[in-house]
Amino acid sequence: MISHSKIVVRYAETDKMAIVHHSNYPIWFEVARTDYIKNLGVHYRELENRGFMLPLVDLSCHYISPAYYEDELDVSARVINITYASMEYYYTVSRGSQLLCTGKTKHGIVDSKTFRPMNIKKFDSKLFELLKSNVEKID
Amino acid sequence: MISHSKIVVRYAETDKMAIVHHSNYPIWFEVARTDYIKNLGVHYRELENRGFMLPLVDLSCHYISPAYYEDELDVSARVINITYASMEYYYTVSRGSQLLCTGKTKHGIVDSKTFRPMNIKKFDSKLFELLKSNVEKID
Amino acid sequence: MISHSKIVVRYAETDKMAIVHHSNYPIWFEVARTDYIKNLGVHYRELENRGFMLPLVDLSCHYISPAYYEDELDVSARVINITYASMEYYYTVSRGSQLLCTGKTKHGIVDSKTFRPMNIKKFDSKLFELLKSNVEKID
Amino acid sequence: MISHSKIVVRYAETDKMAIVHHSNYPIWFEVARTDYIKNLGVHYRELENRGFMLPLVDLSCHYISPAYYEDELDVSARVINITYASMEYYYTVSRGSQLLCTGKTKHGIVDSKTFRPMNIKKFDSKLFELLKSNVEKID
Repeated sequence: MISHSKIVVRYAETDKMAIVHHSNYPIWFEVARTDYIKNLGVHYRELENRGFMLPLVDLSCHYISPAYYEDELDVSARVINITYASMEYYYTVSRGSQLLCTGKTKHGIVDSKTFRPMNIKKFDSKLFELLKSNVEKID
Repeated sequence: MISHSKIVVRYAETDKMAIVHHSNYPIWFEVARTDYIKNLGVHYRELENRGFMLPLVDLSCHYISPAYYEDELDVSARVINITYASMEYYYTVSRGSQLLCTGKTKHGIVDSKTFRPMNIKKFDSKLFELLKSNVEKID
Repeated sequence: MISHSKIVVRYAETDKMAIVHHSNYPIWFEVARTDYIKNLGVHYRELENRGFMLPLVDLSCHYISPAYYEDELDVSARVINITYASMEYYYTVSRGSQLLCTGKTKHGIVDSKTFRPMNIKKFDSKLFELLKSNVEKID
Repeated sequence: MISHSKIVVRYAETDKMAIVHHSNYPIWFEVARTDYIKNLGVHYRELENRGFMLPLVDLSCHYISPAYYEDELDVSARVINITYASMEYYYTVSRGSQLLCTGKTKHGIVDSKTFRPMNIKKFDSKLFELLKSNVEKID
C-alpha cells in the first residue's frame, strides 16, 4: 500500500532562499506516516497510548528540485521493510508530475516507558501482519 | 532581576522575506525563560520533573524592526507579575542598541499530571518568594 | 467573510508537555491568512511577486485549552480592520465545538524591495475595496 | 579543520516523546556550518550577498541516543569533500563524551539569482583553496 498526503507549503516553511527549508521534508514525511497508519485503520496516537513508539534511527533525503510557498504537493509513503524490532519507510514529494524529493526513514520499535526495544509481533501480532502484508518495493 | 540571553539567528529561522519569521520570537522568549530560571539557580526541567508546569495562557509580540540571518541578538527577560496561580514575563529583543521586538507571556501554574491549576506557594514556598523578590517593572 | 482552514496536528508540533507548542498557532494563523486571501480569488504569493508584503507588527494569542497530536482543528480567519497602511486579522482555533485559542495579528503594508510602507489603495484599489467590503466584526 | 558549536536544547525542540524531535538535527547542522565558515573568517551571509548559495542535495542522519530539553550539546562540523560544484559536510552531536547523532550533508554550489550550478573556483578561487585545504576525513 502506498499512501498519499496533500501538503500545501506554509509561508513559515520557506527560508531566505525563497524555497522550502530542507528541515521541513522530514516533518512532511511524518505527516505521511500518520496518514499511512490511518489508511490501515489505526491511529498512531492510539499506538503510543498503548505503549508503543517508533523513534527514528536513520533519516535520508535526496533533494531534486525546490518547493515554493503555496505549492500543492503530494507526499507518498510506503513501508519497504519491517522486522520485529524495526520499520523502514520510503517517501516521495511531488508537485504534479515533477519529483522534488525522495527520502527514507528507519525506526526502532520501543516501549514508550523504558525506550527499550520491543517485539512488535508480541505487542500486537495483527498489526505486525497488517504492516507486513502491505510492504511495497521502491519503484 | 533581568536576564540576558544571546541568540544568533539561524538560517532556518528566516523566511522568504529574508527576515526572521515572526513565529521564532516566542521560541526565543522561551530560551530566555530557561536562562532566567537558571540565573536564579533553578533548572526548569527539574521543576517539570517535580510535577510543575507553566503552559502559556497569553502571548503578545510587538515587532518593531526585522532581524536577519547571523544577527547576534540580546533577548532580555524579566518576571513582571507573579501570583499563586500565574506568572507574567516581559521580553525585549535587541541588536546592539536597536530594539527589534518586545513581548509578554502569561503562564498558568499547573500540575503536570492533571493539567489543573496548582498553588506555587504550596508547591515550593521558597521558589515563590525567590521569584516574587525578583519581580521587575517594565522600563 | 470568515474563512475556515482545516489543520491536522503534526507530531513535530507537539512538545514535551505532549500538547501543541504555542509557537505553532501563529503559523496556523498564517495558513489561515493564505486560505482567506485565496477565498477572495487572490494568491498571496502573486501579491508578493507584484511587490507587496504584509510583515507582522503585532501578534497576540489567548490559549484556552491544549491541542493534541492528530487533532483535527478548524482555524477561522477574518479581517477586522483595514486602512491604507495596515490590516488586522482575528482568528479562532477550535476542535469541534470547543474553542482552543483566539488570536489577532496586525500587519504593515510595505513595498517588498524597500520594506517601506506603501498605500494599498494606490497599489491596487480593487484589492483594497475587496478586502474592505469583507471586513467582519469579532463575535 | 573541525568546528565546534554549542547548542542548548530549546523547549520548542522537544516533542511528545519528551526528546528532541529529529527534524531539529539538520537545523543544528546548519548552525554548525555557519560557525564553520565563520571560523574560516568568512560570513556565510556575505557569500549569499555576493551571489553564492549552497542548497542541500543530500541529507542523512543517524540517531544513536536521544537529546533532552536543556541538554548542552556539542555539534562538530567538518568539510569532507569539495569539488568546483559541490561540498560535503560531516557532523557529530555529542553530550559530553556520549555521541548522540552523526550526519552528512551534500550541497550544490549555485548562483543565487538563477539557482544554476556555478563554479566556486571561478567565483572565488581563494575561498575554494581555503575550503579545500581544510578538508578532513571522518574519524
